[in-house]
Amino acid sequence: MDDPQSYHMTPEEFRTWGHRVVDWIAAYWQGVEARPVLARVQPGEIRAGLPAHPPQQGEPFGTVLADLDRLVMPGVTHWQHPAFFAYFPSNVSGPAVLAELLSAGLGVQGMAWITGPACTELETHVLDWLVEMLDLPPAFRSGSTGGGVIQDSASSAALSAIVAARERATGLESDRRGCDGRLVAYASTQTHSSIEKAVRIAGLGKENLRLIDVDARFAMRPEALAAALAADRAAGKVPCFVVATVGTTSSNAMDPLPAIGPICREHGVWLHVDAAMAGTAMLCPEFRHLQAGLEWADSYCFNPHKWMFTNFDCDCFWVADRAALVRALSVLPEYLRNQATESGKVIDYRDWQIPLGRRFRALKLWFVIRHYGTEGLQHHVRQHVAWAQELAGWIAADPDFELVVPPPLNLVCLRHRGGDTVNQAIMDRLNAGGEMFFSHTRLRDQLVLRLSIGQTWTERRHVERAWRRIREVGREIAG
Amino acid sequence: MDDPQSYHMTPEEFRTWGHRVVDWIAAYWQGVEARPVLARVQPGEIRAGLPAHPPQQGEPFGTVLADLDRLVMPGVTHWQHPAFFAYFPSNVSGPAVLAELLSAGLGVQGMAWITGPACTELETHVLDWLVEMLDLPPAFRSGSTGGGVIQDSASSAALSAIVAARERATGLESDRRGCDGRLVAYASTQTHSSIEKAVRIAGLGKENLRLIDVDARFAMRPEALAAALAADRAAGKVPCFVVATVGTTSSNAMDPLPAIGPICREHGVWLHVDAAMAGTAMLCPEFRHLQAGLEWADSYCFNPHKWMFTNFDCDCFWVADRAALVRALSVLPEYLRNQATESGKVIDYRDWQIPLGRRFRALKLWFVIRHYGTEGLQHHVRQHVAWAQELAGWIAADPDFELVVPPPLNLVCLRHRGGDTVNQAIMDRLNAGGEMFFSHTRLRDQLVLRLSIGQTWTERRHVERAWRRIREVGREIAG
Repeated sequence: MDDPQSYHMTPEEFRTWGHRVVDWIAAYWQGVEARPVLARVQPGEIRAGLPAHPPQQGEPFGTVLADLDRLVMPGVTHWQHPAFFAYFPSNVSGPAVLAELLSAGLGVQGMAWITGPACTELETHVLDWLVEMLDLPPAFRSGSTGGGVIQDSASSAALSAIVAARERATGLESDRRGCDGRLVAYASTQTHSSIEKAVRIAGLGKENLRLIDVDARFAMRPEALAAALAADRAAGKVPCFVVATVGTTSSNAMDPLPAIGPICREHGVWLHVDAAMAGTAMLCPEFRHLQAGLEWADSYCFNPHKWMFTNFDCDCFWVADRAALVRALSVLPEYLRNQATESGKVIDYRDWQIPLGRRFRALKLWFVIRHYGTEGLQHHVRQHVAWAQELAGWIAADPDFELVVPPPLNLVCLRHRGGDTVNQAIMDRLNAGGEMFFSHTRLRDQLVLRLSIGQTWTERRHVERAWRRIREVGREIAG
Repeated sequence: MDDPQSYHMTPEEFRTWGHRVVDWIAAYWQGVEARPVLARVQPGEIRAGLPAHPPQQGEPFGTVLADLDRLVMPGVTHWQHPAFFAYFPSNVSGPAVLAELLSAGLGVQGMAWITGPACTELETHVLDWLVEMLDLPPAFRSGSTGGGVIQDSASSAALSAIVAARERATGLESDRRGCDGRLVAYASTQTHSSIEKAVRIAGLGKENLRLIDVDARFAMRPEALAAALAADRAAGKVPCFVVATVGTTSSNAMDPLPAIGPICREHGVWLHVDAAMAGTAMLCPEFRHLQAGLEWADSYCFNPHKWMFTNFDCDCFWVADRAALVRALSVLPEYLRNQATESGKVIDYRDWQIPLGRRFRALKLWFVIRHYGTEGLQHHVRQHVAWAQELAGWIAADPDFELVVPPPLNLVCLRHRGGDTVNQAIMDRLNAGGEMFFSHTRLRDQLVLRLSIGQTWTERRHVERAWRRIREVGREIAG
């Protein structure tokens, strides 16, 4: 560099500090089990340790790294702890993190084919690979009418889907003149909150989201959906969007696609299938019965950033008719025009998502798939499911506890028979103790504990120990 | 690990390969100048090199890394090339990339305070720091009525702002019952395409986006805005959202906030200010006159991932009234309830953005600010602006070329006097040659070449050379 005054970190310095940071992460993963899973700080405590004003002069990188340990780490909740059973996991793995590093170093923008041909084509390619690996409908392939794209999250995938559905239902009239309060969307009472949020953002209004009743296993009742659709049409409403979930967040319920699909088709309504967590299980043929009926879907998503060892963000989103999606989301200002786009031979992924800019996220999926191979991914998924099933067996055999629903995969819902107060106390005490972290939900108006068995570093012994401690603390509290 | 069958990369392997990847990136940055900036591949060429089917067995990491060089790199457009002058830059730097690596390794989800207290509080803190560093209005501070949040992009920030604006204008009626076709948004004819996209996604309809006329320097004409607002109100419409830009994408035009602000206030309309690129310049007091009037803004964003050496994605978004934003975007399903949230003492950033999940992006900003210090960032910004001003002088002095507008900062718009065909040919030939990459726009119905001087590794000699080559090729083509 010819600027003697440059403040940039030189490539030599980057090598030195980069090795240090890599070693820091390796040591973090090796030692994370000794840390309390849930951060033990009070609101405001982390900020209180930080200087009130930004530095005028730059500081040595070693000082910054030391402050990471000193000032930041006490406030970290350890999602990569093997006893992290809360929510759904947000897994990392070596190959994914190194691909994220490469993507950051390359700093490629994939908004259009021309701004990153490899970024675009590798993404199309690995999403086609995943259609094969997960046995998804052939219409989702890029060589068919559809195709796949990486979104940041299932929330954004749902919003993209609902906007496409809205425009298909109104012949782009809502795109031109705005929504008119007549469009209606449908989801079960167990559907993830991101659907309500997408319905509201897209201008449909939350009163136009029908929450359809569920059966004893918390799966959508298709006859209730059919009735709601018919009632809305009779009332002059315009049904446009149905969400079915393969593996709900609360209890891993499986909405019955083979029954829901034909109802959506009959009413000409867009069917979006959300398999954010459970989608990864479809790597294993023995679990694919859970996605039977997926050929009815207009769109589908699952999150490798949950259970497929690909660090956040990485949601894979497919549509059966890419034209419907692109019509609803495309923009082409003069400053983005180019010959490749005009030729019609390329994909410009900006038209498949909400934002304009996009990182080179396909690298992560490519690295993960190649490092593990299909069989490596299957191995770990099968282990998680097997441990969850073992845990379910232990719970069912214990007189003090109830297995709330038989787990279809790796999410286990249980409760102590002593009532909500006892369950809340068990959860609070164990989470505060730092040895594990799990979360709760409400089912049948009762507080239910949920253990999601799927963190990258979780082993059978962590599941065993979690159950032993839950029983012990249950006994201590309920007497 | 007690699983002898594990397919995970071990921490030891991660150390070894991590060091290799760090060295790869350092070498890439050192050698990037020798590569053609714009990828020289045809549509489909990268895919054709990839195996049609995913691997059943995992592969050695060294093979994957070798394939990165062999199969992927030929399709990369080099955004980190010092002669990348296209669009706006998407800069990386050593400290930012290492923070991204740490963020990936930690794998923290910052959707709620409890899921990542440090992730949340460091974000609030550095966004308060930036209020000071950029001299933003005090209402944007977290200790006031407002606050800041990191979004993925200015597109998503605009969508969040428009949804908040929509709900403020209708008293949450559109959130409940949906849009009704009466809401109207306003932006100049030069506003970024993301605004039209946000207006469409939010259900307002593109016919309800008024594109306000601009003056000779492509800045919004306030009297035209006032007239449009008055006409819409007289027609029974509901004006809700005005976007003003500090540094448009086409020509870096500066919309006059001191005149626009009072008009918005008079009509009770939400004013969003988009300074995606130019915002970084406000680190330097001598450029802050360009954001005079910002105290009228209800929301504001700029992108450190463009010009502030913080790798994508990192858009900083502030609101003056956080309650208006949170009301429009909050969801709280049972499985996300927790004591910290109920206490009201914490920020749950999921309610400040479209998606639920979020990475620990504040680490990047913290590392960048501490590595460079305010003075280091100022140094590089001042250099870029000085070189752009030099280039503008050379253009103005050349009889064959025209400086289309005087550049306020570091975006230079020029054209050869030979007409559109000559300019298109100059651009196509130089971009195809691989020695530099710049893009175009249309202003006054003429094709205009744009050079954005702001890539991390750009030096004065790259700007000099770009101008010399543009002149040479102009002479060759125009004779």
